[in-house]
Amino acid sequence: MIAKQGLEGIVATTSSISSIIDDNLTYVGYNIDDLTENATFEEVIYLLWHLELPTKEQLQELKNQIADNMELPKEVIATLKSMPTDKIHPMAALRTAVSLLGLYDDEADVMEKEANYRKAIRLQAKMPTIVAAFSRIRKGLEPVAPRKDFDIAENFLYMLNGKEPEKIEVEAMNKALILHADHELNASTFTARVCVATLSDVYSGITSAIGALKGPLHGGANEQVMKMLTEIGSVDKAEQYVLDKLSKKEKIMGFGHRVYRSGDPRAKHLKEMSRKLTELTGEPEWYDISVKVHETFTSQKPLPPNVDFYSASVYHSLGIDHDLFTPIFAVSRVSGWLAHILEQYDNNRLIRPRAEYTGPSLRQYVPVDQR
Amino acid sequence: MIAKQGLEGIVATTSSISSIIDDNLTYVGYNIDDLTENATFEEVIYLLWHLELPTKEQLQELKNQIADNMELPKEVIATLKSMPTDKIHPMAALRTAVSLLGLYDDEADVMEKEANYRKAIRLQAKMPTIVAAFSRIRKGLEPVAPRKDFDIAENFLYMLNGKEPEKIEVEAMNKALILHADHELNASTFTARVCVATLSDVYSGITSAIGALKGPLHGGANEQVMKMLTEIGSVDKAEQYVLDKLSKKEKIMGFGHRVYRSGDPRAKHLKEMSRKLTELTGEPEWYDISVKVHETFTSQKPLPPNVDFYSASVYHSLGIDHDLFTPIFAVSRVSGWLAHILEQYDNNRLIRPRAEYTGPSLRQYVPVDQR
Ligand SMILES: CC(C)(COP(=O)(O)OP(=O)(O)OC[C@H]1O[C@@H](n2cnc3c(N)ncnc32)[C@H](O)[C@@H]1OP(=O)(O)O)[C@@H](O)C(=O)NCCC(=O)NCCS
Ligand SMILES: CC(C)(COP(=O)(O)OP(=O)(O)OC[C@H]1O[C@@H](n2cnc3c(N)ncnc32)[C@H](O)[C@@H]1OP(=O)(O)O)[C@@H](O)C(=O)NCCC(=O)NCCS
Repeated sequence: MIAKQGLEGIVATTSSISSIIDDNLTYVGYNIDDLTENATFEEVIYLLWHLELPTKEQLQELKNQIADNMELPKEVIATLKSMPTDKIHPMAALRTAVSLLGLYDDEADVMEKEANYRKAIRLQAKMPTIVAAFSRIRKGLEPVAPRKDFDIAENFLYMLNGKEPEKIEVEAMNKALILHADHELNASTFTARVCVATLSDVYSGITSAIGALKGPLHGGANEQVMKMLTEIGSVDKAEQYVLDKLSKKEKIMGFGHRVYRSGDPRAKHLKEMSRKLTELTGEPEWYDISVKVHETFTSQKPLPPNVDFYSASVYHSLGIDHDLFTPIFAVSRVSGWLAHILEQYDNNRLIRPRAEYTGPSLRQYVPVDQR
Repeated sequence: MIAKQGLEGIVATTSSISSIIDDNLTYVGYNIDDLTENATFEEVIYLLWHLELPTKEQLQELKNQIADNMELPKEVIATLKSMPTDKIHPMAALRTAVSLLGLYDDEADVMEKEANYRKAIRLQAKMPTIVAAFSRIRKGLEPVAPRKDFDIAENFLYMLNGKEPEKIEVEAMNKALILHADHELNASTFTARVCVATLSDVYSGITSAIGALKGPLHGGANEQVMKMLTEIGSVDKAEQYVLDKLSKKEKIMGFGHRVYRSGDPRAKHLKEMSRKLTELTGEPEWYDISVKVHETFTSQKPLPPNVDFYSASVYHSLGIDHDLFTPIFAVSRVSGWLAHILEQYDNNRLIRPRAEYTGPSLRQYVPVDQR
């Protein structure tokens, strides 16, 4: 059976975690709009891992478990400090730190269900700490220790900046984390599932997912969007910029999607957040440029903006360095990766498709001195 | 389109690198039997990357490039030394070291074709050095510097053991490296392709492939086979051991394959090598036990041995620690991973299949205190 390139339209597995039907995104039956308006990121994590929203006690237990696991082993901090931080992409640092983390988890290769769940908690808890620590270290600052009384969104901003964030910032971060948490068989999640379907360990799965998310056709797009907005610089230059790019057949990052046709349901939330936050920071131009790019692009191509387009100006407004946008995506999406890894283990089969051979036909070896 | 579980039978891409047709394996048109008898691993690497066997000059150039790139950055050696080496699996160390290596490659994120090729050379050259260095370090020994006058097979054994290997050992290692070099869309290669199809970098691709190879359903099987042979201990216990396992519905590692039905063409070479080498080391029992397991298993199940079954006793006879068997597989397979990554970049499309949703249907969010 010959599939379309990129496995377009091929159903590779069943999954109870998220669904995209008629351009609606749901997490385990809850519409993403509903969750974004009402839930916390911790509730969503619980939902993705247990397929139900938590009771008060269950939620508190998860929060405690996360709070107890946020600190990094000192060896991981030491390695982050030894990295050539001014030359490397934070996603490469994150990939390495997560792989290294596995070496300090005595249960890394224990394949029991409970042990895998404990690893999920450890990874979810430590990912924000790694990203924040890396960001501090490369600025010549000491990492800020996580606070047990803060939730993930608040803690992350606190560890990044070394000061307690504003309520509106925490709310925005919480919404952004919910919106990025899961997305069915996106490329990084699929990478993780292919990896662990060999019955490899959770750290291998998450390390490979980070590698995949790094790519500009996937999570890397949000950083590229901000690069573009910065290059454009002012609203009056936006239209021409987009038209020029398109006439050179270049892609505009933050638009298009393999699955959505009429629109990405996450984009409207991020657009609204971008409007509010850029106003608040006194930099409405980032929103205005974004809207102009959006209008121009969609007047030319029938491709709506995806999750990465308005998230760029949102993260910028939260004072986050542009090359940390994709790591933040990872801090959120790791919840979905972990859900999918646990689901894969529960009903595993090796993922091993075929290739159609298009190379030379059979030939005989000729010794090198006769070639 | 709903695919069989594990993407069985789905053609996910075209490829000119290797083909499995009627249980024959060819690399770019050359039968694996022909190459194993006649070629060197370096010729095979060139073949996989350029789709032609090299001329004398081309081969010499590749060898020079590899020789010039074998040494590890001192920071990678330092990190290997800092690892809790007695507690971790060498594949986790290798995964981490390769990810780290990317931080010391100034071209890591340069996506030009030539830069990607240079990264392929660096990775192929450094993988054996990493595995050997890790093995030395965990024994409390200093890593042995690679020798520029040795080919990969000879160098690898030399760096592992600190002494020049015998000719027959080098020949066996060369054949083993050729036999493991590529295998169409196996799970680790597919992981690498899914990862880099986001246009992520070569280091991300190889790191994720190492993670996938680590799994016992894939490359991890060769170590498990040796564990089983050791557990069995003597020929007279082999039959009962296999029957017991099968009656408990447990899998016997080293048998079965998603694609091959009548037999894995690589197994016969490894079987013959196992026979010769175990005789030479004065430990023919490893071969004899293997044959008995093979006979008993196939009398019960129509699944022939795969590449991992006889390679276990081959590597053991070469004096290699059992948990280094899978890393050796990686030292060879990285040639194929790199070929596939370069091929993916040449004609890229995001690899993004769908999942069939099997979770709860649409429901409304209820606040936590009302749950
Ligand atoms: C997301 C994405 C990879 C999905 O891609 P896909 O399903 O593989 O679709 P393709 O890349 O094959 O695109 C189909 C067509 O639309 C065009 N297209 C897709 N996205 C485009 C974009 N962002 N800008 C301009 N053209 C685009 C392609 O050039 C192609 O045109 P063609 O048929 O004339 O060659 C793709 O839309 C893209 O690269 N977007 C930009 C990166 C991005 O924002 N990624 C984040 C996704 S959440
Ligand atoms: C290689 C492998 C993963 C391919 O698997 P696959 O195509 O997904 O096939 P499945 O695992 O679904 O196996 C199909 C059937 O054969 C059985 N089977 C496959 N390999 C078996 C083995 N090594 N021992 C015992 N039974 C085996 C399965 O139990 C299954 O039986 P069922 O239909 O009664 O449930 C599988 O054969 C295996 O696990 N082998 C052992 C690990 C190994 O040697 N891996 C290295 C491969 S190079």
